[in-house]
Amino acid sequence: MTTAFERRTRDCQAALRDAGADAVVLFPGSNMVYLSGFQEAPNERHLLLFVPAQGEPAFVAPTMYREQLDTWVADRRLWDDGEDPLTLIEAVAEDLDIAGGTVLVDDHMWATFTQDLRATLPDAEFGLASDVLAPLRMRKDEHELDALRRAGALADAVSEELRGLGDEAVGRTESALAREIDRRMADRGAAEPSFDTIVAAGENGAKPHHRHGDREIAAGDPVVLDFGGSVDGYPGDQTRTTVFAGDPPEGFEDVFEVVLAAHHAGVEAVEPGVPAEAVDAAAREVVADAGYGEQFVHRTGHGVGLEVHEPPYIVAGNERELEPGMVFSVEPGVYLPGEFGVRIEDLVAVTDDGHERLNDSPRTWRPL
Amino acid sequence: MTTAFERRTRDCQAALRDAGADAVVLFPGSNMVYLSGFQEAPNERHLLLFVPAQGEPAFVAPTMYREQLDTWVADRRLWDDGEDPLTLIEAVAEDLDIAGGTVLVDDHMWATFTQDLRATLPDAEFGLASDVLAPLRMRKDEHELDALRRAGALADAVSEELRGLGDEAVGRTESALAREIDRRMADRGAAEPSFDTIVAAGENGAKPHHRHGDREIAAGDPVVLDFGGSVDGYPGDQTRTTVFAGDPPEGFEDVFEVVLAAHHAGVEAVEPGVPAEAVDAAAREVVADAGYGEQFVHRTGHGVGLEVHEPPYIVAGNERELEPGMVFSVEPGVYLPGEFGVRIEDLVAVTDDGHERLNDSPRTWRPL
Repeated sequence: MTTAFERRTRDCQAALRDAGADAVVLFPGSNMVYLSGFQEAPNERHLLLFVPAQGEPAFVAPTMYREQLDTWVADRRLWDDGEDPLTLIEAVAEDLDIAGGTVLVDDHMWATFTQDLRATLPDAEFGLASDVLAPLRMRKDEHELDALRRAGALADAVSEELRGLGDEAVGRTESALAREIDRRMADRGAAEPSFDTIVAAGENGAKPHHRHGDREIAAGDPVVLDFGGSVDGYPGDQTRTTVFAGDPPEGFEDVFEVVLAAHHAGVEAVEPGVPAEAVDAAAREVVADAGYGEQFVHRTGHGVGLEVHEPPYIVAGNERELEPGMVFSVEPGVYLPGEFGVRIEDLVAVTDDGHERLNDSPRTWRPL
Repeated sequence: MTTAFERRTRDCQAALRDAGADAVVLFPGSNMVYLSGFQEAPNERHLLLFVPAQGEPAFVAPTMYREQLDTWVADRRLWDDGEDPLTLIEAVAEDLDIAGGTVLVDDHMWATFTQDLRATLPDAEFGLASDVLAPLRMRKDEHELDALRRAGALADAVSEELRGLGDEAVGRTESALAREIDRRMADRGAAEPSFDTIVAAGENGAKPHHRHGDREIAAGDPVVLDFGGSVDGYPGDQTRTTVFAGDPPEGFEDVFEVVLAAHHAGVEAVEPGVPAEAVDAAAREVVADAGYGEQFVHRTGHGVGLEVHEPPYIVAGNERELEPGMVFSVEPGVYLPGEFGVRIEDLVAVTDDGHERLNDSPRTWRPL
């Protein structure tokens, strides 16, 4: 994999030169993983990767990382707790000859570090690293697609198991089911949940980002199950809406059929050359025609890669054309406040001549 | 609790006026929770809380949060996916009369949002919200101390259980033990691990931020166990170094005794009026006197509150005087690359006349 990380870095450097920029400066997170292979959680210590348009990249890192800075990047400049890391940053910028140039900072870099960079490099112009990195990261290579496929299969398997609980789920809390999902994902080899697992029963399903709480699942409750687990650094993300037992409330089946039709319409629209917003429009049109346009309160999807939300976003106004290797969610939803919500989500990869679904568990609301 | 959040906001506004600043602008995370009670993970949508020095605070949020924006802050301005949130931000800044003022942004705000604020408010001066919020957040109120005590007791209980495994732990992987720790914390009511649980066996213990991996625990391995679970939003964080079975390597007991003495020396130094760096010096002196100064590669501790790493940092150069209500870790360590590491950590609260330990599980390396 060292080769892949170094190759991506060389691509990033070429993109920097094309853009007339002088460097990207990265912060712990997915961009740092993408170029260096080094993974760490964002934290308050100065841990930065400088990639100049020309020459070799360099890390500035706390000395405590000496043993674990497991990356092909050879230039490492370490500072001890109690020392001022800004001195090192100034020296690195001088060595890489970027102090007076255009510096693209990690989109997720904390304000405390961007403020430090502005203070340390007063002559630099600042922009965002996604200008050069997002186009590279959007097109997944075979290694990445393989991990995403396996994450998809893992989430599908757990979804089928969960929806097979039927009566057994009734009387359990949303939180208990969420823990059960997380445990089953870990048992199947997920390193961690891709995001906070969502189990949203009844009226909680009408809150698109409700996570889970003390509410008990009752017979007849529509329950939104939205989760995924991470495989080799790549996340799963799928949603099914189910009724574990009993009869759903009046109107539920109609709404469900609308959302399912919208989901299929969105997926069918996916092929190279189509603008991202056309996928949103295809799904949204089905929902609007059924009279629920106002209740579909979010975009149709988001890209998925080293991050579970990344470009391309499947939203009105995004005219970027789809390209082979892009992976994103198609997840229309309808939310009726105080009653219930329905959302159905698969991840989809753009192929040379169409698309490939990365999820394929049954899309019925009935227990499996 | 609404009252507490509003009271903190009024304190923040008073601090803004004292500092001559015009507003803080917060991003999803602990500052937003502290003032509004609203919790969400950082994400790519514009979800910002504006708190002006005078008048009422306002949220800018995606419409999809309408149902779940559970906070005392009444002014909410919602934008739909596909709309431009910067228009709303411009209007809010105008209404609150801060567009030409000094705006303190959340220290953890992503660069993508700080860049947007700079573009939208070209006449504003920018600073960091911690200038006014950190001094408030450092002094925990009784509600916060109570949650931290319960988080401490929870971590202690799981630590004792784990160290009681003895022989049973031998042959299991670090990752399997980490999952076991996480499961036991969840069973005891932790909402989530406070950070990635660390189980570092043998030579992995020499990497202070090693998490866990496929390495199997062997008899005689020193194993660093560093973990905590979140209770009512407040994290636990403690570390013990144990040997589950067999005899530790040569030299281990000596190093262990040095680290334990340093830990006690650090804790004993904690009382109001003492500078934070004096606690670091007290622990470090013990380690240095024993000849391991070069192997104690990190600061002695970090504050703990809504975040597991927050001010005050217990580090050389931090002259801030300790005050009642401050809570932080005291966690000296010695790391011998290729051999093993030892770290011993308790959380400590500063009281009116000294300190209170929030952890009290046995500090021995022997199995319990």
